Amino acid sequence: MLNKRFVDYDNMSLLTDLYELTMAQVYFEKGLNKTAVFNFFIRPTNKRNYFLFTGLDLLIDYLLNIKFTEEDLEFLRSTGKFKEDFLNYLKDFKFTGNLYAVDEGEIVFANEPIVQVEAPIIQAQIIETFLINTLQISILVGTKALRCYSVASDKILIDFGLRRAHGTDAGMIAARSSYIAGFSGTSNVLAGKIFGIPIYGTMAHSFVMAHESEEKAFENFASVYPENTIFLVDTYDTIEGVKNAIKVAKKKGIRIKGIRIDSGDLLALSREARKLLDINGFRDAIIFASGGINEYKIKELVDKKAPIDGYGVGTELVTSADLPYLDCAYKLVEYDGKPKMKLSTKKMTVPYKKQLYRVFKNEKILKDIVSHFDEHIEDGVKMLKLYIKDGELVRNTPSLHEIREKTLINFKTLPDTFKSITQHMTINPEISPRLIKITEDLRKSIKSGG
Amino acid sequence: MLNKRFVDYDNMSLLTDLYELTMAQVYFEKGLNKTAVFNFFIRPTNKRNYFLFTGLDLLIDYLLNIKFTEEDLEFLRSTGKFKEDFLNYLKDFKFTGNLYAVDEGEIVFANEPIVQVEAPIIQAQIIETFLINTLQISILVGTKALRCYSVASDKILIDFGLRRAHGTDAGMIAARSSYIAGFSGTSNVLAGKIFGIPIYGTMAHSFVMAHESEEKAFENFASVYPENTIFLVDTYDTIEGVKNAIKVAKKKGIRIKGIRIDSGDLLALSREARKLLDINGFRDAIIFASGGINEYKIKELVDKKAPIDGYGVGTELVTSADLPYLDCAYKLVEYDGKPKMKLSTKKMTVPYKKQLYRVFKNEKILKDIVSHFDEHIEDGVKMLKLYIKDGELVRNTPSLHEIREKTLINFKTLPDTFKSITQHMTINPEISPRLIKITEDLRKSIKSGG
Repeated sequence: MLNKRFVDYDNMSLLTDLYELTMAQVYFEKGLNKTAVFNFFIRPTNKRNYFLFTGLDLLIDYLLNIKFTEEDLEFLRSTGKFKEDFLNYLKDFKFTGNLYAVDEGEIVFANEPIVQVEAPIIQAQIIETFLINTLQISILVGTKALRCYSVASDKILIDFGLRRAHGTDAGMIAARSSYIAGFSGTSNVLAGKIFGIPIYGTMAHSFVMAHESEEKAFENFASVYPENTIFLVDTYDTIEGVKNAIKVAKKKGIRIKGIRIDSGDLLALSREARKLLDINGFRDAIIFASGGINEYKIKELVDKKAPIDGYGVGTELVTSADLPYLDCAYKLVEYDGKPKMKLSTKKMTVPYKKQLYRVFKNEKILKDIVSHFDEHIEDGVKMLKLYIKDGELVRNTPSLHEIREKTLINFKTLPDTFKSITQHMTINPEISPRLIKITEDLRKSIKSGG
Repeated sequence: MLNKRFVDYDNMSLLTDLYELTMAQVYFEKGLNKTAVFNFFIRPTNKRNYFLFTGLDLLIDYLLNIKFTEEDLEFLRSTGKFKEDFLNYLKDFKFTGNLYAVDEGEIVFANEPIVQVEAPIIQAQIIETFLINTLQISILVGTKALRCYSVASDKILIDFGLRRAHGTDAGMIAARSSYIAGFSGTSNVLAGKIFGIPIYGTMAHSFVMAHESEEKAFENFASVYPENTIFLVDTYDTIEGVKNAIKVAKKKGIRIKGIRIDSGDLLALSREARKLLDINGFRDAIIFASGGINEYKIKELVDKKAPIDGYGVGTELVTSADLPYLDCAYKLVEYDGKPKMKLSTKKMTVPYKKQLYRVFKNEKILKDIVSHFDEHIEDGVKMLKLYIKDGELVRNTPSLHEIREKTLINFKTLPDTFKSITQHMTINPEISPRLIKITEDLRKSIKSGG
C-alpha cells in the first residue's frame, strides 16, 4: 500500500468537483441514495492500440481513507451551499461500496469497463473526480512507457521526467507507472522512498561548468563515486568529453561505469564513443543517451543498432506528449437495480453492471467480451476482480515489483500485430449477445417513452 | 501564502533528481559549495507568442520550508550512496540564498531570465527539480488560460479540468493559474478551500439518468437549489431538455439561473435554446457551454455571436493539449563570481547574473532587454524583483485576487499583434550591448582554451 505521507489524505475528499457535492445534497434530501453502478472506460483513439492499466493501488488507498474533517466541513459550511443535515451526514462519510477492477499491469483496450464502482450513489459520485484524475495519468504514462519498452529491445530505460511532469503528483505517478511498464528505475528520489523504485542519476552540465575544466569535474566526481560514475560528456564537445573521461579513469586507475550523451547526433556520437572506450580498454562502460527521447527515437536508434545501452526518458514520457490526455469516462449504468443509458448518438453507453472476459488462444489474447455481470462466458477469463467489498479490502494488492513482473508476462500475450507504435490496429471488445439484446430492448422502451 | 496542508512539506526535499544529491555530496566533500547563479527561462516555441508567469508563490513556499527530516535522511542512508558527513550537513539544510523573479501575473517571453537563484551551489542544485516542476505547469496552464481569456470577450470562463489534470497537484495548480489568467472560478472544491477561488458547479448526466425522467431530476435539483440551478439539458435531447427546464421552472415558480449544453452543435443549439428561454420569459437565464472547449472553439463561437454566456474549459486547458510542455531550463550562469556558459551550438546560454528590463511606449510593451545585473538601462523598468534575500522573504507576495487584477492590467500592455492565437509573432528580448560584448569575450577565451 501507498505510504500515506505522499498526499494529505485529510484533504482528499474535497479534491472533487463542486457538483458532486451539490448533487449529493439533492440525493440526500430526496432520499435517493440507492445503489448505483458506474463504469470507467477509455474511449478509442487512433494513437494507441492498447493501454496499460495502472493506478489502482492509488485509487484503493483513496477509497479506504476518504473522510471529511471538521475543517473540510467548515469550509463547505462557509460556501452557503450546504445545510446542516447534509454536513452531518458527511461527518460520518466513508466508502462502503464495492470496487471491481482489472488487476494493475493488465493490457486493456478502449470501450472496456476496466473499473466498476457499485455503491450508494452519493459515494459513487463524490469519488468520481479523484478516480478519473488518478487513473487517467497513471494509464497515460504507463501506456507511453510500455510503448518505449516494446521497442527498446534489452536496453535499460530510466524515468528522467520529474522536472517536466505536470506537478508533484504527476512526477510520482510517472515514476510508478513507468516502473510497472518495464522501466528499470527513476531519477525521482521521493519515488524511491515511497514506492521502493530503484533510483539512478548521473551528473548535470552545471556540475561540469562549475569546475575550471571538464577534466577536473570528472576527477572530483569519480573520486567520490569511484565505482559508480557515469560521465556526462557533452557539455562542451562530446568526443572531447569521452576522451576526458578516459583520461581521468586511466589517471585514477578506476573503471568507467558509463558515459551519458544528452545532445547531438546520438547514433554517430555513440558509435564514435564506443570505439574510443573499446580501444582504451573500457569495454564494460555503458553508453547512456538522453534528451528528447521517446519511443519513436528509441526504435530508430535500436533499428540502426546504435551502441546505446540505456535511455533516460523524460518530458515525452511524463507528459505523454503525442497524446497528453485520454478521453476516458465514468458512466452510470445501473441505479437502484434498473439499467441506465444515455441516448446522445455520439456517446451512447452500454447499460448494466458488467463483467469483462478475455479469451486466449495459444497464450495470446484472442478477444475480449463485455457481458452482463451475471453471465458466464465459456473459455473466458474474468478480468474484473472484486477488490473492495462493502468498503473493506478483500483482495490483496501485489507489490510494485510483482505488478511489474506480471505486466511483462501480460505483454507477451498481446499479439505482435498490436504492438506497432505507428500502425493503428486494436482489439474492439465484443458485446455479448445477451447484453446486446437487453440493451436494444431498453433503448426501444426509452425511445417509446416507456 | 499557500496553506501547508496542500502538499507534505516534510517530504518535498526528496522530490528531486538523484543527481542533485550526488553532485551535492561531491561539492560538499571537495569544499566547492561557492555561490552560484542560475537562470530559469523558456525556450522559444512557435505555438505561443507570450507566456503568463505564475507559480512563484508555490516556489517561495517550497524554498522557505525545505528541510530534510530524519526519515528522509534514513532513506538516503539506506541507498548506500551517501556518507555520514554529508547526511549530517543535510540535517541542518535550509535555503539561505537569494531569489529574484518577475512578479506573478507578468507577461513574459521566451529567452528571458524570469527567475534567478543565487545561492551556495548545493542549495541551488537541490531545488532545481521542484523549481522547474512547479513553474512549468503553472506557466503552461496560466498561458493557455490567458489565451482563452483573450478571445472570450466578456464571457465567463470556469476551470472544469480537475478530473483530467495530470494528478492532484496539476489539478490544484490549474485552478490557481487559470484564475490568475482571468477565469472566474473553478469546479475544484479543494482549490476553493486552499486558494480562496470561487467554486462553481451544475449537475451531471448521471444525475439526470438516475431519475425516472429528466423533468423529475430537474424538479428535485431545483427544489434544493431554487435560486441557483443550472440545468444540464443534453442528457437525452438538448432542445427537449431546455423545454423541460422551462416547464419545471414555471411549475415551481422559480427562476432558471441557467442551462448547460455539454455536446452537439453549440452554435445552433445555443441559438435555439436562447429563443425558447426568451419567449418563455427567462431572459436572465444564462447559457453555459462545455465539452472539448479550448481557445479556438471559444473564438469561433464568439466570432459567430453564439448566445453563450460562459464556458467550462476542462481537459484542453489543464493539459495545455496543443502544447503539453514547455521547453524550459535552469542554467548555471555564474559560479564563485565567474561567468559560466555552455558552448553546444544549439543550446548556447548567456552568462552572468542578469536583470531583465522592460521598455514601454504609450503604455504598451515596446521591448525587453536582458542586461548584466549591475547595468542600468535608461527608461527600462526592472522586471526581476528580489523576493528572498539570504533565505528570508523580503517582498510581500500579493493575494491571488490581487495577482489576477494585475494580470488583466498587464495583459493590456501587450500589443494586440501579439495576442493572436493562430499567428506566430513574438517579442525577442534584446541583449544589452555590454552583455553581448562580455559574452563574446568570454566565448573567445573559452574557445582558445584560456
